[in-house]
Amino acid sequence: MTRTPIRGAIPTDTTHSPAATWRTLDGDAVTIDGGLWAKRQATNRDAALPHGYRMLETAGNFENLRLAAGRSTGRYQGPVFMDSDVYKWLEAAAYEYARLPSEWLRSHMAQAIDIVGAAQGADGYLNSHYTVAEPGRRWTDFAQGHELYCAGHLFQAAVAHHRATGEESLLRIARRFAEYLVDRFGPGKHPGTPGHPEIEMGLIELYRETGDQRYVELARFFLDQRGHAWLGPGRYNSAAYYQDRVPVREASELEGHAVRSLYLTTGIADVYLETGEQALLSALERQWADLLGHKLYVTGGVGSRHLGEAFGQPYELPNDLAYDETCAAIASILWSWRMLLATGQGRFADLIDRTLHNAVLAGVSLDGERYFYVNPLASNGRPEYLGRGGCVRKEWHLVACCPPNVMRLLASLGHYVATRDDAGLQVHQYAPARIATSLAFGQRVRLRMETRYPWEGTVRLTVEESAGPWTLALRVPAWCGRPAARVNGGVVDAVQASDGYARLERSWRAGDVVELDLPMNATLIEPHPAIESTRGCVAIERGPLVYCLEQADQGDAPVAELEIDATATPAARWDPKLLEGIVTVRAPGFQVDTSSWRGRLYRPVGADPAPRWRRLELTTIPYYAWANRGPGAMRVWIPRATI
Amino acid sequence: MTRTPIRGAIPTDTTHSPAATWRTLDGDAVTIDGGLWAKRQATNRDAALPHGYRMLETAGNFENLRLAAGRSTGRYQGPVFMDSDVYKWLEAAAYEYARLPSEWLRSHMAQAIDIVGAAQGADGYLNSHYTVAEPGRRWTDFAQGHELYCAGHLFQAAVAHHRATGEESLLRIARRFAEYLVDRFGPGKHPGTPGHPEIEMGLIELYRETGDQRYVELARFFLDQRGHAWLGPGRYNSAAYYQDRVPVREASELEGHAVRSLYLTTGIADVYLETGEQALLSALERQWADLLGHKLYVTGGVGSRHLGEAFGQPYELPNDLAYDETCAAIASILWSWRMLLATGQGRFADLIDRTLHNAVLAGVSLDGERYFYVNPLASNGRPEYLGRGGCVRKEWHLVACCPPNVMRLLASLGHYVATRDDAGLQVHQYAPARIATSLAFGQRVRLRMETRYPWEGTVRLTVEESAGPWTLALRVPAWCGRPAARVNGGVVDAVQASDGYARLERSWRAGDVVELDLPMNATLIEPHPAIESTRGCVAIERGPLVYCLEQADQGDAPVAELEIDATATPAARWDPKLLEGIVTVRAPGFQVDTSSWRGRLYRPVGADPAPRWRRLELTTIPYYAWANRGPGAMRVWIPRATI
Repeated sequence: MTRTPIRGAIPTDTTHSPAATWRTLDGDAVTIDGGLWAKRQATNRDAALPHGYRMLETAGNFENLRLAAGRSTGRYQGPVFMDSDVYKWLEAAAYEYARLPSEWLRSHMAQAIDIVGAAQGADGYLNSHYTVAEPGRRWTDFAQGHELYCAGHLFQAAVAHHRATGEESLLRIARRFAEYLVDRFGPGKHPGTPGHPEIEMGLIELYRETGDQRYVELARFFLDQRGHAWLGPGRYNSAAYYQDRVPVREASELEGHAVRSLYLTTGIADVYLETGEQALLSALERQWADLLGHKLYVTGGVGSRHLGEAFGQPYELPNDLAYDETCAAIASILWSWRMLLATGQGRFADLIDRTLHNAVLAGVSLDGERYFYVNPLASNGRPEYLGRGGCVRKEWHLVACCPPNVMRLLASLGHYVATRDDAGLQVHQYAPARIATSLAFGQRVRLRMETRYPWEGTVRLTVEESAGPWTLALRVPAWCGRPAARVNGGVVDAVQASDGYARLERSWRAGDVVELDLPMNATLIEPHPAIESTRGCVAIERGPLVYCLEQADQGDAPVAELEIDATATPAARWDPKLLEGIVTVRAPGFQVDTSSWRGRLYRPVGADPAPRWRRLELTTIPYYAWANRGPGAMRVWIPRATI
Repeated sequence: MTRTPIRGAIPTDTTHSPAATWRTLDGDAVTIDGGLWAKRQATNRDAALPHGYRMLETAGNFENLRLAAGRSTGRYQGPVFMDSDVYKWLEAAAYEYARLPSEWLRSHMAQAIDIVGAAQGADGYLNSHYTVAEPGRRWTDFAQGHELYCAGHLFQAAVAHHRATGEESLLRIARRFAEYLVDRFGPGKHPGTPGHPEIEMGLIELYRETGDQRYVELARFFLDQRGHAWLGPGRYNSAAYYQDRVPVREASELEGHAVRSLYLTTGIADVYLETGEQALLSALERQWADLLGHKLYVTGGVGSRHLGEAFGQPYELPNDLAYDETCAAIASILWSWRMLLATGQGRFADLIDRTLHNAVLAGVSLDGERYFYVNPLASNGRPEYLGRGGCVRKEWHLVACCPPNVMRLLASLGHYVATRDDAGLQVHQYAPARIATSLAFGQRVRLRMETRYPWEGTVRLTVEESAGPWTLALRVPAWCGRPAARVNGGVVDAVQASDGYARLERSWRAGDVVELDLPMNATLIEPHPAIESTRGCVAIERGPLVYCLEQADQGDAPVAELEIDATATPAARWDPKLLEGIVTVRAPGFQVDTSSWRGRLYRPVGADPAPRWRRLELTTIPYYAWANRGPGAMRVWIPRATI
């Protein structure tokens, strides 16, 4: 199979995927050029990527590879999967380079690739831990060894680098390792499946870039090995922890380690896109329903349980005790993206929107150099909590999977904005941007998108190039009750079509203007009554943003003593000076005097005089912006006043 | 120092403790002869102790000791602290033997002691793990090695056995090991402090039995070593986990592993009782206030956090996610008992009453052969939860600390009923019993206690022997608002005196009758508003018992859909056939139809029609009796209907 090489910041290429409803755009089709996303991308480029490179040096990731290459002497440092952080950083750098080349990026990618290449064995095997710290022990610990996990990240980085630069250097390394794996694993060869999925999506993307069908077969082989407790028995963790309890086609629930679970579903979705095997998609649909119905935080965060970094049981969604690893939220986006490409249903883009603007963005500080591993929905203001970050982000982690994961996602945000199909173009996410692409039938299209999303719900699209009829599909988020659209000033009927998209069919000409209006009101959200931690509380949402009370905005009233008047309507206000510019939401509330409780936790109902209250105004900020002003209490779910 | 040996089921002997306000009774002063406690003691004797002996054989505890003794060949089995379960079983058996000797108990104790003695080294050292599995590695892992922990349990068992039988066999073994420890550790000798406290209370009790003051000094030495992160740095757990962050005299908070924490406070209280060092008591008072004010479940359960089996932060008290290890509740009782002896304040006996009747009794099945390690306050009815028992008790655990701990507490319940001081006799716990003791000034006293406590609050005490004036102090539990008392039919004024006791001073004669009336109403309890998991809920208490909804009593209405009408008064009813006889509490409530939520977790307030309700009657049972009728949902905290 010969394929035209694509260029750009492209994590997923479904141009040729037989089961894709929608296809990813070619080349650098989307350029985000303003607003919140552009700001986060600039910080990611200017602060996070250089910071990450330094940290990879400090933490020993590069040094481990040098040891494996025989270029240095000393001991292996850190957990077994240190190489993967290098690969994720490389992937992020490649996307950034595709967006905007720079000499710094080029030379630092080259340095990293040089070390990686030198660390590769003559047989193609590449893993600094097993080369340096456990020589002779390759493939002895599928459950926790992370060899295939690291390989998957290498493949993703190599594809990203190739698409960004056209250079073969990293791709060659990846293909040599892939050749080693193809030789070793598969039907009739060595059995095995990874304790930490990731290789599956790495292999599929490597296939998409190279056309080598064996990679699809190997990915499917790894999937087929699962569900027979091959990894589980006799080890520290259960089969469920490794998603090895149930065969992938029979799974209905998300269980076990959240990142492993969602990297697996993402890989399965990739295999589905290339094979169209319906049983895979059906299993994913069931699990996605389990997520939305039982295991999702309002922020989009997932994986509630500290113990085992795992999904909890249905409705097990504590606030201060939430785990919600940043990587799990990113994994949720990667999965939903592939579900969107497979099905063309807007609910998947809705979840990406929610997860990105809340759970993921909260994972990194506004300055780009501090990271949360754990993302609670409430904090009592203590910096440390359960041995994790509490309300203070850290510059790096001992297990540093999250920081470079954030980097690669932010650097590739443009990828998630739009797709195409035989009928035309779909816009999924709203940000100031230029879109320039060929439609499936060859027609060249250029659009300019202007919006203040996520702060305002008006989106203006100006056609800059087009020569014929096609359908523009615009996502109408589920939070929006009364969407409206005008084309060249004329009102469009029936804006909300099926599957979450408004479809505008027309022979589009340069100069045509579409105005989409998604009225954005601050809304009080109530939780399912079976969720223990949120009973009697409401959350505030406005557009895709979830809000929180942070101590810094409440004066001398402790967050723990605040209640909201849920009968009143909250008010939104643009506050350009606060936290790099945000819309704050204010609501009337009360401070409750808890002094009558002093020293005890339980008392008979009605035994004490009613508590005293003080009226005040609560100020809430977007959840993503919390913990940027020093330690302090925070909460997303606010008790409803029962006064 | 020469002491008159005492005989009986006596875990703590404060007869000569200089700082004790109240002194433990001598001999078999209290015989429980009816009611709930007698039933639990009979089951403990007839079912649990033989079951435990079998399990110690099955799990390898005895075999490990045989290996250490050179009497068998094979591999050490189980965690490092397997010996301690043998010692706790021996301690339980000794108490049972003191209550009522039997040939089975005698011969099985003798067999166990024979194996223990054979496993002891020539130098006095005794630990099967380090002898068999890690020879030459003694004292290399204070944090997790559990050598001193096992020694402490040996000492307690040896003292119990000596007090029960008058025999020296186990005491000799203990004193040889104690001699080894005294030689090895102390100022100017080997430094060290145990990662798991227990040795402290073991040493103090060994001192109380033998008069050897060096044991007090060694216990104090171990305390003095703490708080300098000697155990913590560079290991898996933090210094806080091991109570090694703060010196014991400076501690104000309970933190880290709950059982370790409370075994430490118990040992400190023991050292205080023997030394009167005020700084120790002050630190304990601060920590006890932290417990009652921030970290106590309504059941008396403690140690909310699965991760690290630890205390949470203030108000971190989730229900379904509660850890509440059975051993931690037992430790809380051991500590409160010593605080009661030290201070003479009824609040400590109140907590014992609450903890025993709820958190501890729930740890064992009604048949005595199944155990909870983890005691949640809510369950969705799944048998397994977080890798622990969920709603199904297990016959034994891989870490089997809890079962024999329950056994030794139940076998010694009589010990916690009454004490004496220079003024007379104090009754702390109410159960049908005979009390026969000498008062501090030598006067012989016999009382018969008749009561249906904890089912009814009337206690009748008949003096059967007395010849002079003394004060009878009767605890008035804090839950009781309007206590009343009559002596020989005459009403007593001012029943509720200071410190939680009604004090009746009189020249008591045989035939005198005291009737204490503690009106016991089913009461709705509200939680501190800062506790996340209980917001908008109430619990039901009646006397010392906390109630719960269990699925088996609710017909076809799922527990998860039930709400309580908190404006109505619940009604209590004796139900002799249910769960070996309990008082059930019924309250009007509602079943809420949650079908409008299907498939999602969050929605705008007011966006959907109000849910439909069905009126019904809720039936609650004592928490201790749950999970005896097969798997099913349960909850202690019941949402208040907002209809």
